[in-house]
Amino acid sequence: MSQRLKLSMLATGFAIAAATIATAARADEGMWTFDQFPAERMRAAYGWAPDQAWFDHVRGAAVRINGCSASFVSTGGLILTNHHCAIACLQQLSSADNDLVAHGFNALAASDERRCPGQQAEVVSAITDVTARINAAIGTATGAALVRARDAEMEKLEGPECADHAKYRCQVVTLYGGGQYKLYRYRRYTDVRLVWAPEFQAAFFGGDPDNFNFPRYALDASFLRAYEDGRPAVIASPLTWSARAPVADEITFVAGNPGSTSRQLTDAQRDFQRQMRLPLSLILMSELRGRIIAAMAGNAERTREGADLLFGIENSFKAQMGQFGALNDSEFAAMLRASEADLRARAANDAALGDPWADIGRADAAYRQFYLDYRFLEAGAGQGSDLYGYARTLVRAAAEREKPSAERLPGYADADLPRTERRVLEEVPIYPWLEELNLGFWLSKTREYLTADSADVRALLGNESPEGLAARLISGTRLGDPAYRRQLWEGGAAAIAASDDPLIVLVRNNDARGRALRARFEAEYEGPVVAAQSRLAAARFAAYGASNYPDATFTLRLSYGRVAGWNERGRDVPFATHMGGTFDRATGNVPFDLASGFAANRARINPDVVYDFTTTNDIIGGNSGSPVIDRSGAVIGAAFDGNIHSLGGNFGYDGRVNRTVVVSTMAIQHALEVIYPAPRIVAELNPQPRRGRR
Amino acid sequence: MSQRLKLSMLATGFAIAAATIATAARADEGMWTFDQFPAERMRAAYGWAPDQAWFDHVRGAAVRINGCSASFVSTGGLILTNHHCAIACLQQLSSADNDLVAHGFNALAASDERRCPGQQAEVVSAITDVTARINAAIGTATGAALVRARDAEMEKLEGPECADHAKYRCQVVTLYGGGQYKLYRYRRYTDVRLVWAPEFQAAFFGGDPDNFNFPRYALDASFLRAYEDGRPAVIASPLTWSARAPVADEITFVAGNPGSTSRQLTDAQRDFQRQMRLPLSLILMSELRGRIIAAMAGNAERTREGADLLFGIENSFKAQMGQFGALNDSEFAAMLRASEADLRARAANDAALGDPWADIGRADAAYRQFYLDYRFLEAGAGQGSDLYGYARTLVRAAAEREKPSAERLPGYADADLPRTERRVLEEVPIYPWLEELNLGFWLSKTREYLTADSADVRALLGNESPEGLAARLISGTRLGDPAYRRQLWEGGAAAIAASDDPLIVLVRNNDARGRALRARFEAEYEGPVVAAQSRLAAARFAAYGASNYPDATFTLRLSYGRVAGWNERGRDVPFATHMGGTFDRATGNVPFDLASGFAANRARINPDVVYDFTTTNDIIGGNSGSPVIDRSGAVIGAAFDGNIHSLGGNFGYDGRVNRTVVVSTMAIQHALEVIYPAPRIVAELNPQPRRGRR
Repeated sequence: MSQRLKLSMLATGFAIAAATIATAARADEGMWTFDQFPAERMRAAYGWAPDQAWFDHVRGAAVRINGCSASFVSTGGLILTNHHCAIACLQQLSSADNDLVAHGFNALAASDERRCPGQQAEVVSAITDVTARINAAIGTATGAALVRARDAEMEKLEGPECADHAKYRCQVVTLYGGGQYKLYRYRRYTDVRLVWAPEFQAAFFGGDPDNFNFPRYALDASFLRAYEDGRPAVIASPLTWSARAPVADEITFVAGNPGSTSRQLTDAQRDFQRQMRLPLSLILMSELRGRIIAAMAGNAERTREGADLLFGIENSFKAQMGQFGALNDSEFAAMLRASEADLRARAANDAALGDPWADIGRADAAYRQFYLDYRFLEAGAGQGSDLYGYARTLVRAAAEREKPSAERLPGYADADLPRTERRVLEEVPIYPWLEELNLGFWLSKTREYLTADSADVRALLGNESPEGLAARLISGTRLGDPAYRRQLWEGGAAAIAASDDPLIVLVRNNDARGRALRARFEAEYEGPVVAAQSRLAAARFAAYGASNYPDATFTLRLSYGRVAGWNERGRDVPFATHMGGTFDRATGNVPFDLASGFAANRARINPDVVYDFTTTNDIIGGNSGSPVIDRSGAVIGAAFDGNIHSLGGNFGYDGRVNRTVVVSTMAIQHALEVIYPAPRIVAELNPQPRRGRR
Repeated sequence: MSQRLKLSMLATGFAIAAATIATAARADEGMWTFDQFPAERMRAAYGWAPDQAWFDHVRGAAVRINGCSASFVSTGGLILTNHHCAIACLQQLSSADNDLVAHGFNALAASDERRCPGQQAEVVSAITDVTARINAAIGTATGAALVRARDAEMEKLEGPECADHAKYRCQVVTLYGGGQYKLYRYRRYTDVRLVWAPEFQAAFFGGDPDNFNFPRYALDASFLRAYEDGRPAVIASPLTWSARAPVADEITFVAGNPGSTSRQLTDAQRDFQRQMRLPLSLILMSELRGRIIAAMAGNAERTREGADLLFGIENSFKAQMGQFGALNDSEFAAMLRASEADLRARAANDAALGDPWADIGRADAAYRQFYLDYRFLEAGAGQGSDLYGYARTLVRAAAEREKPSAERLPGYADADLPRTERRVLEEVPIYPWLEELNLGFWLSKTREYLTADSADVRALLGNESPEGLAARLISGTRLGDPAYRRQLWEGGAAAIAASDDPLIVLVRNNDARGRALRARFEAEYEGPVVAAQSRLAAARFAAYGASNYPDATFTLRLSYGRVAGWNERGRDVPFATHMGGTFDRATGNVPFDLASGFAANRARINPDVVYDFTTTNDIIGGNSGSPVIDRSGAVIGAAFDGNIHSLGGNFGYDGRVNRTVVVSTMAIQHALEVIYPAPRIVAELNPQPRRGRR
């Protein structure tokens, strides 16, 4: 998915100014849940904090979309998000002679708005604490039984007990690694349409090289619209659109869905990340990136078709490179170890605690023994091939649906099945060359890492080569046809057993091994870790009380902060860029070539309009598209990135240099007025007389 | 170059059985210099050790070739080495309609032997201790001055004071990181011709997937021949060829040139390897590997042209992956830290020692600040583009030759210039697509890691894109023409200044920055480290005496050991495979498809001939092609690989599981007799009645 995690480069990973982190003010740290916002702490720091009405208003306008965040900015269901959060839709709606990624999209009339395949929008409507129910269901279970009991109870809460699945979706969220469970109820919109997006080159000016940099000149914004029953959704209380310049030090909030942080990992778990998971992932992504780049070279159609995947890889690569760099920074790592030592010391007299660190250490050691098998044969099987994904979902759904809902694998419970079905049956474009590339890469790396002497590899490949097998599977499968997928979905176990589709056959023959590895993962790692983490969470509550926020879980959070630049090794970085700066930075060559809209409208573009700006808000990937909100509750920008110093944000926050990067509403509106004119949208965003600038 | 470093996969890097390493017998550890062989220690372990005549005989037959090792096996100058050490030659002598890599080469008559471009062969003829002279020249100098003084004295010793450069080459070798300097004098052969090589598929059966595995079925052998004055060189005392099966536990020696080990790094230096150098290198190699694989896909000519580069990358990747895995193994790392702690404790009362660890730590910290600049703009500039390499050598040679020899950059002293000149002027095939790919990759990664805001990147790229610039440079340069290179070489500074060749212009404009980074590297890292290492070496001599061998330096070493398999997690791995096993392992698909010679001659191949076998010898990349010698001084195989457990060998040796992988002379002779018949060579290898089997 197009999450711009924006953590770092190796360069900066090593340059992180860790010496001062331990003493840094952490005033703005935290990705807070709406029901546990530290209003007192904020008031102490800023002299002001929101009241309940403010929270309710913002929560009702904060939108979660596929892999990203967004907000309602009109009563007519208009949604503001990033361009890079809409790029998959732009690509899917493109054709060989109409490249919407390259040229942008502008629905001049309401009837021109086009549905984004598979796109959803969700708004939190209620949060209920269900910790006691989950814990009661778990009881004294351990290992895989714990996971099963927990998941079954979650499924009950999400499914049968959560009414009106057409319009609502329920999701139990695990907070504090199992210390809290909360039931989030979402108002769900499944018809989301594309309204306006600039040219890719305007949104992503500077491309991958600038993707961790500030100053920045990127119009990373787009508009979607939620529909209900074929008509624009009616939103009672959207955010007020305020196309004004940000003011130095003014209070800002970011309401969005940070995807994942790892701030409460134990030392052993961080070692696993540093020693195994991250390097393996970076190495695999690098080779895949190279294969895609070379396969696209000189081929315009492939360049268009592969753009989103390449973007996603490059983006994830940087994020993980930043995480890896941070964990390899000796002083940063020492700070994190000191934090674990502090908790151990505070909890030393807690006899009931046991030794959760040792328990997790043992689980970690066990996991290392089968990590590569699990990675290649289960968790990462298929490596992004959509067709393989369909095959596995169809094979598993057929088997799982024969069991009681509570005993099924994740994603196949009754509550989840409609979403799974929609994902499998929705018509999206399939690019065979990319499918074959992904599948061949996966098979080739599976053999490389598990070795040709592995029985699993022999079962997968037989006497075929990875490349030959991938070619045969992709050319022979009918799974690209939604009608055939529907036939298999509806035909269930009998249809799967009877199918001679080569991808179905491959998955069918190897699924038992993947399931066994998943079971082992649950029994030897996930189960023991959940049990230990919930004791750790209790110890943290006892030690630190409410100054504590849960790791990110791609659920709604609120961060507070302020508009600010930072000091970069003695040099002040101003908090804002202006649109005129784009023309100075342009070289005429990719990715620093001017978007044609900019080149054509240079005379009309006001060079003094604030373009992008930075704030101290604590965000991470998944927050892309989040509204940046002022104290009045008006939106003044959309977060789209972090600066280079936010790279360690997965593991810790340093308020002196960690910055959120935002595209201003001022710039977006200027673009709507003079670059990619959309008077209909400008009018919709500004239904009343415009607010004066402060 | 085609060194098969063969260290490991991530898989095995993490699985290394480190718990027992600390207590492992290290009886066979060591890459010993011929003049400091631990004969007493070997005699104590094996009840026998070589005498001086044995050493002299073996030393006189041990050959160093480009990036590999080899041995004289006939009085007529016949050289045994690995196939993978001759692959560059095979490739260079290939044409579109005659692919010698794929089909092998067999000079049926002496006149069919073909010269390998750029191939040399060198035999050590004398070793002289010059430690006192180098140390006197260094005196009290520090930093860059130390490096300059040391290099100047080396150049004096290698050049003016070492006569007859046509037939001899002198090289001062730094041992024990500066604790010893020795002058090696080599008899040099510059006319080396290809005699016999099997099909690639026979030599590299199992390909990259098997490249760290045993059991193994690879005919990784070839024959070259040294010529002198157009006639085969006359070798007084070659190794006796003994085409017999190895015997369990028999004593084996490996005489060859291990390229590089890092067994005496300090903790700080290992941290740098683990945190920066190795991950960056693995990540860069992976993307380059992916780009090359995809660029070759479906294109037979490119597949042939890029094969050697891809092989080199995949091979280095595994080696470095093994090093990385070993350094990330917590117990292995603890063992290495314990070793530093032991030396610190023993040296605690040595007042003259100072604190070399702290000195190296400071140098390491300084290096980290400019490592990426140095890596991209100087040490790794051009990323394997031959044309870029020519441009830089020509630009630098022109400037350096105007200075006194002692003040020049490494490689440009009078003693080195003939070799440099030969390298620049020799005609070798240039593949423009590969040049453009390499150069574009380098430029693109330089911008990625140094950022678009770097003044160095702007100076390099101007307003061009990395890809656009690479295409312009490669299509516009005339450096592919040896005559133009000669013109610039001979024209010197004036010709360089006048050249409008785009690659010359690029290098000319950016060379000052590269030189400045090199100077900084010498002043802030190399100088202080050399000074501290020579004190550390003295402390090691004082603490451990002669039980100490220097890190590998791609100079001649001798390892002793024995024929042995090992125990793999409870399962005994036999020490040998047999030729018949090839047919069981074959799948019919790349890289497990039978070589056509094997398929065609199956009936004639004796399935019981010992194919590959393992020994306990302590070797590393650069040892490829080394003769494996029995106690009688006869060659019984050519080392070509290490098993998975040799992966940590860069940093330490574990005699229980660390194994050298060898192709037997028995298998080679069988191939010469029935698969790729070369009766002329069989006769030459067996001038006397064959020895009986023991």
